[in-house]
Amino acid sequence: MEPIKVMFLNPVGTGDYDAFFAQMAEEHRHPATEVHVTSLDPAVGPFTHIEYRAYEAMVLPHILQATVQAGREGFDALVIGCFYDTGLLDAREISDTTVVVAPCHASIETALRLANSFSIVVGRWKWVHQMENTVHGYGYSRQLRSFRAVEMGVVEFQQDHDCTRERLVQAGRAAVQEDRAEAVILGCTLETGFYQELQDELGVPVIDPSIAALKVAEHAAHLRRRQGWIPSRRWSSQAPPAQELAALGLFQRPYAFGNRIVVPPA
Amino acid sequence: MEPIKVMFLNPVGTGDYDAFFAQMAEEHRHPATEVHVTSLDPAVGPFTHIEYRAYEAMVLPHILQATVQAGREGFDALVIGCFYDTGLLDAREISDTTVVVAPCHASIETALRLANSFSIVVGRWKWVHQMENTVHGYGYSRQLRSFRAVEMGVVEFQQDHDCTRERLVQAGRAAVQEDRAEAVILGCTLETGFYQELQDELGVPVIDPSIAALKVAEHAAHLRRRQGWIPSRRWSSQAPPAQELAALGLFQRPYAFGNRIVVPPA
Amino acid sequence: MEPIKVMFLNPVGTGDYDAFFAQMAEEHRHPATEVHVTSLDPAVGPFTHIEYRAYEAMVLPHILQATVQAGREGFDALVIGCFYDTGLLDAREISDTTVVVAPCHASIETALRLANSFSIVVGRWKWVHQMENTVHGYGYSRQLRSFRAVEMGVVEFQQDHDCTRERLVQAGRAAVQEDRAEAVILGCTLETGFYQELQDELGVPVIDPSIAALKVAEHAAHLRRRQGWIPSRRWSSQAPPAQELAALGLFQRPYAFGNRIVVPPA
Amino acid sequence: MEPIKVMFLNPVGTGDYDAFFAQMAEEHRHPATEVHVTSLDPAVGPFTHIEYRAYEAMVLPHILQATVQAGREGFDALVIGCFYDTGLLDAREISDTTVVVAPCHASIETALRLANSFSIVVGRWKWVHQMENTVHGYGYSRQLRSFRAVEMGVVEFQQDHDCTRERLVQAGRAAVQEDRAEAVILGCTLETGFYQELQDELGVPVIDPSIAALKVAEHAAHLRRRQGWIPSRRWSSQAPPAQELAALGLFQRPYAFGNRIVVPPA
Amino acid sequence: MEPIKVMFLNPVGTGDYDAFFAQMAEEHRHPATEVHVTSLDPAVGPFTHIEYRAYEAMVLPHILQATVQAGREGFDALVIGCFYDTGLLDAREISDTTVVVAPCHASIETALRLANSFSIVVGRWKWVHQMENTVHGYGYSRQLRSFRAVEMGVVEFQQDHDCTRERLVQAGRAAVQEDRAEAVILGCTLETGFYQELQDELGVPVIDPSIAALKVAEHAAHLRRRQGWIPSRRWSSQAPPAQELAALGLFQRPYAFGNRIVVPPA
Amino acid sequence: MEPIKVMFLNPVGTGDYDAFFAQMAEEHRHPATEVHVTSLDPAVGPFTHIEYRAYEAMVLPHILQATVQAGREGFDALVIGCFYDTGLLDAREISDTTVVVAPCHASIETALRLANSFSIVVGRWKWVHQMENTVHGYGYSRQLRSFRAVEMGVVEFQQDHDCTRERLVQAGRAAVQEDRAEAVILGCTLETGFYQELQDELGVPVIDPSIAALKVAEHAAHLRRRQGWIPSRRWSSQAPPAQELAALGLFQRPYAFGNRIVVPPA
Repeated sequence: MEPIKVMFLNPVGTGDYDAFFAQMAEEHRHPATEVHVTSLDPAVGPFTHIEYRAYEAMVLPHILQATVQAGREGFDALVIGCFYDTGLLDAREISDTTVVVAPCHASIETALRLANSFSIVVGRWKWVHQMENTVHGYGYSRQLRSFRAVEMGVVEFQQDHDCTRERLVQAGRAAVQEDRAEAVILGCTLETGFYQELQDELGVPVIDPSIAALKVAEHAAHLRRRQGWIPSRRWSSQAPPAQELAALGLFQRPYAFGNRIVVPPA
Repeated sequence: MEPIKVMFLNPVGTGDYDAFFAQMAEEHRHPATEVHVTSLDPAVGPFTHIEYRAYEAMVLPHILQATVQAGREGFDALVIGCFYDTGLLDAREISDTTVVVAPCHASIETALRLANSFSIVVGRWKWVHQMENTVHGYGYSRQLRSFRAVEMGVVEFQQDHDCTRERLVQAGRAAVQEDRAEAVILGCTLETGFYQELQDELGVPVIDPSIAALKVAEHAAHLRRRQGWIPSRRWSSQAPPAQELAALGLFQRPYAFGNRIVVPPA
Repeated sequence: MEPIKVMFLNPVGTGDYDAFFAQMAEEHRHPATEVHVTSLDPAVGPFTHIEYRAYEAMVLPHILQATVQAGREGFDALVIGCFYDTGLLDAREISDTTVVVAPCHASIETALRLANSFSIVVGRWKWVHQMENTVHGYGYSRQLRSFRAVEMGVVEFQQDHDCTRERLVQAGRAAVQEDRAEAVILGCTLETGFYQELQDELGVPVIDPSIAALKVAEHAAHLRRRQGWIPSRRWSSQAPPAQELAALGLFQRPYAFGNRIVVPPA
Repeated sequence: MEPIKVMFLNPVGTGDYDAFFAQMAEEHRHPATEVHVTSLDPAVGPFTHIEYRAYEAMVLPHILQATVQAGREGFDALVIGCFYDTGLLDAREISDTTVVVAPCHASIETALRLANSFSIVVGRWKWVHQMENTVHGYGYSRQLRSFRAVEMGVVEFQQDHDCTRERLVQAGRAAVQEDRAEAVILGCTLETGFYQELQDELGVPVIDPSIAALKVAEHAAHLRRRQGWIPSRRWSSQAPPAQELAALGLFQRPYAFGNRIVVPPA
Repeated sequence: MEPIKVMFLNPVGTGDYDAFFAQMAEEHRHPATEVHVTSLDPAVGPFTHIEYRAYEAMVLPHILQATVQAGREGFDALVIGCFYDTGLLDAREISDTTVVVAPCHASIETALRLANSFSIVVGRWKWVHQMENTVHGYGYSRQLRSFRAVEMGVVEFQQDHDCTRERLVQAGRAAVQEDRAEAVILGCTLETGFYQELQDELGVPVIDPSIAALKVAEHAAHLRRRQGWIPSRRWSSQAPPAQELAALGLFQRPYAFGNRIVVPPA
Repeated sequence: MEPIKVMFLNPVGTGDYDAFFAQMAEEHRHPATEVHVTSLDPAVGPFTHIEYRAYEAMVLPHILQATVQAGREGFDALVIGCFYDTGLLDAREISDTTVVVAPCHASIETALRLANSFSIVVGRWKWVHQMENTVHGYGYSRQLRSFRAVEMGVVEFQQDHDCTRERLVQAGRAAVQEDRAEAVILGCTLETGFYQELQDELGVPVIDPSIAALKVAEHAAHLRRRQGWIPSRRWSSQAPPAQELAALGLFQRPYAFGNRIVVPPA
């Protein structure tokens, strides 16, 4: 069997975090998995984060083009690397046979296998209403204990490890002790790299959303290969007809990723 | 007082329907209201409809740019003219003091003032899951009796009036008689122009989504002028900082609408 | 076109507040709208407020008679001026072609066009369970952040403006800062007259329920005139048969309002 | 111990059904219970049924006066004998220490002790939306399989026993076989007298709402006597202050029931 | 009529609390009711409480055998005496014509007849998630104000009456004053014996779960005798076929209760 | 790294199906995974299926003992091989660091990665209410389109492959075409072996619950090894204290599986 191929798409207009995620992938992917860490064509604009709905909206067409490209290149699975799960359903519509995975959904799946409830520790309160709606839409309202915000922006998480850890620990502890969460989910892919310290500190499972998404993608990739479990194309999952896409000139050219780091199988 | 100004944005890449909606606006707007019917910069691509999530995603950045432009031009209210309510929350985030309105939400508000329940008659089953989620997200699950699909695409509705009317009547009748809907909502802005015939035929309120949205926009516009009821900017409604937008080069240039028909006050 | 006619019914047994609401109507109605501010036949009893379910129950038959009367006089819309939305569905059942509107529903519609969530500032905790049920019944549970009570009775709100404003500001600030509401709704029609000061103070939309209801009524009135959108009479919206009403002697005589102040078109 | 005293209030303006319910009470009450079957003061109007919201509204003040009277006469429990559970929460507010019970709630409580789901067989579809809301408000949406209507009015149920039974059997059978209800509730107090035949025919528990309510009232009455479990008066359950009631002249005079049949302890 | 027979099953492996519950039964059962207080065959293991899911699981087969035995002995109703309502639906499946009742459900039914909302005061936070799910499954999520835990284990409640009372009062007061509960439910059958003191102290109905369950059982027993309201056997309520049970050797032998105290009719 | 170890527990009292599941495991496990297919100690009784709640209850203590044993033997993950997900939360409570997985939950997770909605094809209507509650408890009510029953018992599925396939195809087709499911889940572990044929026939993802559960277990096992994501032990996830277990003599002895087939890594 060919190695499993997973794309981890960092949906911003800079490749600055790609090495960071490639290292995460290298550490955490199955040895037989090939991971491509990609970011968007810089033409999208110099987005270093997509904390605002408006920013998500601007990068969305690029996420879709990247998805089509991943499908064409035969990727088994694609991770959209933002905890807003930006464009998850949209991307799945045109992913062909590639399975699309996103960190918020993947993290909750992972947490609920280990605990009866969870809290999510995010950067800003700004994000919460949208994420609440997402969690509610997935059906997990009753298992969600709380959101806690540390009032840091996406790009700040990786600037001072000790400071970030301290804030995450504090918010996580409040989630466990005051909100009675049985697991903690880190609500931003740039909160990656802290889960083990937090886990030791808090004594409950702490889910890293990048790793959770990568591992769910690998899992889905295996099911695609062996069981043929690929995205449905019936009813609301119907894809646009190829003919119409051609007429629209949509998705006709290969997508030019801004950056791509290949993490080969070990 | 300056006349109220409402923009009715047709979020497709063609101006073909603009005259149609301008006529609707002329007939139904308050005499003192100025309506601009606009469509997107053709650079978005030759979309004549956005029935697929992927299409919505591709036009979304243009909807946002159009919204920013409407805000800059001092529009009191903006209608996003698609029953998916595409980008409603995203647009509101960067609309400045312009109120943003969309047909699905406006139609339900209108229907529930007249009836305890409603059904929605759409073109295709493809649309239904997404619209169901939208209705659920708004909170109206219990008042929604059913969706009924006539299996026509967006662009077909205005091709043969009699044929379309016949199908809508049939679906509407099933909604009322079998699903016990007390009102019927037409679930596509291109189903405009049929509500009166249907109303006569079915004997229940039949809501035209384009008119409903236009009239809610006018209503909201008055509240903006007189009461100062403009969009909140707290918590999840916070807008991106101007400085960051400038740095990103986002929304800096005037948006070039593909087409604009001005319906002046009478 | 004849001027739009809206009745603002103050569902108590005293005309003491009628001038107050007439002034509100005069300030806030569209110049072309004629508003009749009415109160109930004093035979209902000297109710100055209906804070208790028992009081609402006692005035309910009078609300219905007033509704029938409004229908007969050809009013386009009727506002039932109490934030409990007392008898809204009951009145609509026998309103003939008059649209019936109520402040709680109208205020939430208004707020959700501007914000993703809201809190309601009421007089007493006594009111909250019933209003919570009402909000839940409308479907807005997830958008409701909280209730806050200032522990004042209905009749106290207009006694000392500064004191009331102070308490409302305090409760509103807690709603925004602690409960993270993005808009604030004032949960009593006698909390009218404070929204602008609060809005300035709190920096989020603050909805005045009397004005919101009046303006929704005007909006609905226009839709009734021009679009023919009148209350449904199917299924649960079926009205009692005229013959049976005659046999019961129900609603046969004109209703004698306790008071009526006509605010003519400007 | 004094015998338990239960009032079964027939909330209509005629005593025509009182003997019917008295016979039901005689057959089904505990031998040590005294039941008073009452109907409203004919001044309420010649209502023989309250199928419309408007009718319920008109009799509601009388239901409240009857409740206050029951409280004053020291009744342990009061049944409001209509499946709309008309005024249940309103009456409880001013019932003093009398427990108030109503057929819809009592029937569901009874059914769910015996089955995992139930359907309700009503007279007309007109009733269904309101009853659905009631069931939803109680929290039983997930256990409700369906409503089935036999298209008979309240006053028709007791006119031709065989015909009514036939229709109820047919609707009940559809509820069990098609909707997979595990129990059937008869959704009108005038559907009394059929449950045993239906039970034999359908092979599932069939709940008679009048009997269910009477027996829950007896049960609640015992808990009131022995355990002191009387209505709460905190928060939303607070009753109007006696002083204010006196000032309003509300509930000051004894209520003149239209009719009262005393079924003494055996 | 033969006296009503109710079994109160204490689902633990010790008879130590049986006298305690027998005294409760003697005080609170109707004089004409015969109550058998039973506990499990000591072969189940020396469980003095079943606070853990694992413990409940281990005693569950014994609860089922006890249920079959109660059915065989012709009991009208069976109480499963644990506030987890352990095995309620399982037991009902094989209870033959005996009605099965449990304290959590019975207490909520009882409370909601007296109040619009309730809180539950439990021993440990450990219990809460499971009980929350149970309350939610019954449909009472919206009426549940809160859980409050006193951090005592089941076996501690009856060790020092004053200490327990003090803690329950404190938790109950917080539930009423901070969470605005209108009634309080004691969430463990061993919290029996405190409700009257708490009721006096807190001024709201305080429901004793053992008494509530016993009285609901008596009530259900009367309905079984007189109305023939026995458990449904359709759809999900279908019982295993006798033949299959015989082949499995399941429930073939009489169950040997560990202890049985008969409280005869007075 | 030691090979991953997964136990697939067939929770019945016969080893008859173990070879069948071992073959499934052999075909579908990752080559580096060791799978032990086990069944219960025959002392549990000759259960060949656990279609009734009563049967589940009887085998539950054995499932728990098997779980403890799996924990002791250092299994990474345990599958409880019944679509009722029997004892999932109970087992997790005492699984030590072993992750516990069950087919209903695993299948839905798998399906929702591929489709927006699903239907479940079960053997009998008897099962449906319980499974509905389970799906609802997990939070997936809105994604569940329908249940369809083929009216076959668990033990019949593997008797005549063609007949079973025919019935499953028919039910699956109805689910897709009439209920508009976008994926189909086979709702019994003995429906294993049909998914590929159905998938070809129906054109939507068809999820085999045994395979789905096995693969989720493998996935969870990897996360346990590499990320240390083991079950939470806080709040409701707290395990019984070892000391108390010892005093109760609970789980002290090794569990004697009825049968164990080891599928070694390839």
